[in-house]
Amino acid sequence: MSKQGYVDKRCSSCFAGARRKQIWESQLNTKMSKTALVFLAPGAEEMELVISIDVLRRGGFDVSVAGICDASPIVKCSRGVSVKPDILLSDAKGPYDILVLPGGLGGAQSMARCKAVGEMLKQQENESRWIAAICAAPTVLKAHGVGLGKSLTSYPSMKDQLKDDYKYQEDKVVVDGKLITSRGPGTAYDFALTIIDKLIGKEKASEVANAMLLTY
Amino acid sequence: MSKQGYVDKRCSSCFAGARRKQIWESQLNTKMSKTALVFLAPGAEEMELVISIDVLRRGGFDVSVAGICDASPIVKCSRGVSVKPDILLSDAKGPYDILVLPGGLGGAQSMARCKAVGEMLKQQENESRWIAAICAAPTVLKAHGVGLGKSLTSYPSMKDQLKDDYKYQEDKVVVDGKLITSRGPGTAYDFALTIIDKLIGKEKASEVANAMLLTY
Repeated sequence: MSKQGYVDKRCSSCFAGARRKQIWESQLNTKMSKTALVFLAPGAEEMELVISIDVLRRGGFDVSVAGICDASPIVKCSRGVSVKPDILLSDAKGPYDILVLPGGLGGAQSMARCKAVGEMLKQQENESRWIAAICAAPTVLKAHGVGLGKSLTSYPSMKDQLKDDYKYQEDKVVVDGKLITSRGPGTAYDFALTIIDKLIGKEKASEVANAMLLTY
Repeated sequence: MSKQGYVDKRCSSCFAGARRKQIWESQLNTKMSKTALVFLAPGAEEMELVISIDVLRRGGFDVSVAGICDASPIVKCSRGVSVKPDILLSDAKGPYDILVLPGGLGGAQSMARCKAVGEMLKQQENESRWIAAICAAPTVLKAHGVGLGKSLTSYPSMKDQLKDDYKYQEDKVVVDGKLITSRGPGTAYDFALTIIDKLIGKEKASEVANAMLLTY
């Protein structure tokens, strides 16, 4: 498929040509589905992790789950669920439309320590692409100096660590520019649906919510 | 620790004896925590799976995640999340206080085909212990002839398969005797919290909900 676009080599008005154009456009749309990288660190909160991955895939995102710096081939999450990442962070082929940071205290500490996570976050911010973090994960943004001064939220007990460097809010989900943050397991569906809303559209977010027996 | 119970070898009324007794009772309570077996089948809905495991562990349950008949060492769930079971079903050491069946169409079909799942469910019912199923999983009960005639619910599209053999309800969570059923990803927190409520108590369920930023 030419990168320059579709060229009908026969007759642009004939039925076969129109059909080929339709197929090409459909392939182009598929190819252009939004991409997300979800960081998987030891001690990640597994509900926040899995809700993010699953809901975004339901929304048509091409999601890669990347084991970070100190991740083993099978990553043990905060309540003992063992999840296998799709790729290692070192094999991630960006840029991604959004980087997603699940919470969990151990997971957030691992992401805060991991230089590669910090470099990806800073590049994502510099190139005006989306970042989303939930629960304890907004502290990872602070650790890497990302999004400073923006409005955000987090798990309530993290407020003191964040309130001097960010405009701290207490809404379920906070969106400021291309930064989406949220509070905990109980807001994880809202968090993931807001990502679909902002990157694809409200109609898609509502459709995905309805199929899960939620409203958005 | 003796299986026969605590025996204070010095002086039952002294402070040290009382303290040792307290520690022993606390160990006994830990040992007597409720046990749950969560079935993990290929095609399981990963949010329903992980919310069940995580919330029950937060509630103090001793949870075993068992790969069923046709499960490989790493099980691919319905939206591509790869989860490693704790044990194989053939290694499960019951009885468990509750058997938990997550949904997902592929997962439910696997559990319906698996004879060992059917045998465990029937024994659980015969011995008056708890069974919980969500989303597509109530069809597994029907496949194995379990709980027939009871009130239950399921993912809405499964209603036609169930309404002749059960008293079909449309509540988020339905409890009839020792059978707990629920509807889909959007009701999975209510499902898991109801299990804590019924097997431990409402206070514990509320405490777990609050820590997740939910109410119960």
